[in-house]
Amino acid sequence: MADHPVRADAPGDSAGGRHRVVIVGGGFAGLYAARKLGRDPAVEVTLIDRRNYHLFQPLLYQVATGALSPGDIAQPLRAILRRNKNTRVVLGEAVGLDPVDRRVALSDGGTVDYDTLLVATGARHAYFGHDEWATLAPGLKTIEDATEIRRRILIAYEAAEREADPLRRAEWMTFVVVGGGPTGVELAGALGEISRDTLRRDFRSIRPADARVLLVEALDRVLPTYPESLSQSAGRQLERLGVTVRTGTKVTDIDESGIAVVVQTDGTERTERIPTRTVLWAAGVQASSFGRRVAEALGVETKVDRAGRVPVDADLTVPGHPEVMILGDLAIAKRQGGKPVPGVAPAAIQEGTYAADSILRRVRGQTPEPFRYRDKGDVAVIGRLSGVADIRWLGRFGRRSGFLAWGMWLGVHIVYLIGFANRLVVIIRWAWSFLTHGRGTRLITGEPHLPPIKQPEHLD
Amino acid sequence: MADHPVRADAPGDSAGGRHRVVIVGGGFAGLYAARKLGRDPAVEVTLIDRRNYHLFQPLLYQVATGALSPGDIAQPLRAILRRNKNTRVVLGEAVGLDPVDRRVALSDGGTVDYDTLLVATGARHAYFGHDEWATLAPGLKTIEDATEIRRRILIAYEAAEREADPLRRAEWMTFVVVGGGPTGVELAGALGEISRDTLRRDFRSIRPADARVLLVEALDRVLPTYPESLSQSAGRQLERLGVTVRTGTKVTDIDESGIAVVVQTDGTERTERIPTRTVLWAAGVQASSFGRRVAEALGVETKVDRAGRVPVDADLTVPGHPEVMILGDLAIAKRQGGKPVPGVAPAAIQEGTYAADSILRRVRGQTPEPFRYRDKGDVAVIGRLSGVADIRWLGRFGRRSGFLAWGMWLGVHIVYLIGFANRLVVIIRWAWSFLTHGRGTRLITGEPHLPPIKQPEHLD
Repeated sequence: MADHPVRADAPGDSAGGRHRVVIVGGGFAGLYAARKLGRDPAVEVTLIDRRNYHLFQPLLYQVATGALSPGDIAQPLRAILRRNKNTRVVLGEAVGLDPVDRRVALSDGGTVDYDTLLVATGARHAYFGHDEWATLAPGLKTIEDATEIRRRILIAYEAAEREADPLRRAEWMTFVVVGGGPTGVELAGALGEISRDTLRRDFRSIRPADARVLLVEALDRVLPTYPESLSQSAGRQLERLGVTVRTGTKVTDIDESGIAVVVQTDGTERTERIPTRTVLWAAGVQASSFGRRVAEALGVETKVDRAGRVPVDADLTVPGHPEVMILGDLAIAKRQGGKPVPGVAPAAIQEGTYAADSILRRVRGQTPEPFRYRDKGDVAVIGRLSGVADIRWLGRFGRRSGFLAWGMWLGVHIVYLIGFANRLVVIIRWAWSFLTHGRGTRLITGEPHLPPIKQPEHLD
Repeated sequence: MADHPVRADAPGDSAGGRHRVVIVGGGFAGLYAARKLGRDPAVEVTLIDRRNYHLFQPLLYQVATGALSPGDIAQPLRAILRRNKNTRVVLGEAVGLDPVDRRVALSDGGTVDYDTLLVATGARHAYFGHDEWATLAPGLKTIEDATEIRRRILIAYEAAEREADPLRRAEWMTFVVVGGGPTGVELAGALGEISRDTLRRDFRSIRPADARVLLVEALDRVLPTYPESLSQSAGRQLERLGVTVRTGTKVTDIDESGIAVVVQTDGTERTERIPTRTVLWAAGVQASSFGRRVAEALGVETKVDRAGRVPVDADLTVPGHPEVMILGDLAIAKRQGGKPVPGVAPAAIQEGTYAADSILRRVRGQTPEPFRYRDKGDVAVIGRLSGVADIRWLGRFGRRSGFLAWGMWLGVHIVYLIGFANRLVVIIRWAWSFLTHGRGTRLITGEPHLPPIKQPEHLD
């Protein structure tokens, strides 16, 4: 085989002069680029992903909290792109880049050649230099993260039900979410709802409504990217679900039975320990490892922000490398006026679509326009009939909280969910949960690993 | 705590003279017993399970083949039994039995006291003394088994797509199912459909329809519990889906790249090797380990059958122990006439309901009738619009194959599925799969562990 310099199935073989586009990452940016490119005979597309599915990340917290199944929010990439005859899906992990030969290296030794490379490998959660917290406070980026968080939440209630010691029982019934951005707010809201509503009648020794849910945020308000009034409203809606919102509170340590925080009030600082067995991490992201390797290979400075994301030009290409575009959460793209494009799904979708357009224009000898981010606004759900929305093109009128925001959130998420069957299934699960106050998919999967529970022994 | 001889949350504390029923296992038998007992104030019920959900096992093969999500066929036990105020659900693993003190020991050191014990911990698959085959040929009893089988099937096609060597590619595209009972037939049929239909347009280097699916059965026909004519029909329907049915073929060895079999034809034997990377195990069961411990503690002979199941009296109690009943797949119950009750879901449901009735009668000083198995017949699905059914109370007229059997199968499985939302979701997924020939939940979850694929290297 060594005398074949190019893999039998590499796009280069059959391109026949067609422009070879390689997309790394099948998230929103990568998938929308692939979809748009996939019907144009002028290009040949290879989409590389470590996973065989596209994941609808905005609903991942609903898997983590038992409202949806993983299969409801994931769709196989091959199924989505099956009609695109010019598109090949490769299940593999991109680990290296040779920018001179224009070639991506996979972890299994294979390679894929490109004429244009789209890097859309996103971001993972970051622990700000405390990697040892990863096992103590799981973050929420993958399906495995979501089922692990679901397992921890459910096991905590099971352990509390069987724990005789009141102090240890209280530890099991304390849930801490670190990070007051949209994911943290949505997770904390769902945890509040689970304790007050979903599990109300499920236990015999504990009252789930006695659970404490804390949302810990270092800044002085939750949802810091929203207008101040909506942050306040979100805080009030969370408190109504029984969530204690602790702003100005920074986590300094995490161990198996609690967290240590520094609380800032009016210029003074004090430390505090919060006993808990369940800490969920919704704070901070960092660039994916392939993203960092790409930046290194291309000689791009990634110290621009703490997350190590990659700065791009107005056309989303890497400075000095018009054949490499960075898309989605991995990119630091600038809007007109210089403000950064936010790391949200609509931005990734717009960037993916733009990248495809831009490539097709270049292939036809035209010059692409710069990327123009259309800010449609933000919406976050907090619980049953509550949420906040900031639809910016409506100005002040677009700032909504409560029922209206909740309704908008439902609509937007159903419309963008990929796969018609998934949409129907999600609608049914939501309708059913709404009517019955239930969450049907609260399964503890994987080996249960029951925690050691202190109780009197009885048999030898 | 040591001065409390009984756990704070043990039923004994609050029973107040009520009859304490402990059920180990939340499968069909245990759950149906709990449901029936759960509204009677004369008893207090504790249901112990290692899992927090009831699993609808007859549809597990559909999770393994990507047609349904785990959450579609599992329902939290607490949710099912939440209205039963006299019922406590314990997430725990029963590991020991003290028949003198009438006490079940849990793996975490806790204990639960009983007046009547129902043991319904079912069976696991058995490898006939070849436990080393377990990792090479996964069986199908749990959700984890199902997602592992799904992962192997999907990874095999992914590996084939990228494999340059034709022989190794053929190994990846050969799927062997061992065991021609209902699970084996349903798995093989689904594998045939996946290769011929579901994945038809998904790949670029391979034709999924070239996949070989083999169903290997040691006896001389598949579905040996069905009438001969239906076995023949099932064989023909499988062949139509591209499945090669190999009866009279016994597996003698399994390794990473193939299986060895002994083929018996007309009294002669020959050995053969079948190269394959994916072997699925649907042959043989053995009693659960708690079941075996119960038999040992009660001094019951379990060498009656190879599976180590526990023989019971006509009222499903253990001989000499009227306070212990064995239900479901773990029991060897006899019908009137002496034939054994089969290890199928309807039998387990009937036994669970009977056990509850029987306990309630005894508590009221009445004598229970012996268990009477109502054989409603068998139905197995093979693929789109095909299957076999043997509805015995209809006699010869009840022997059906093809479309009618398939329709019956659909109806029965929807009716018995627990949880209204699950029913709707399953109907939608099935309708959608039927219309689009797709299977929406074919996700490779867990760490992908891509197999080493032989391909030329390209980068250093």
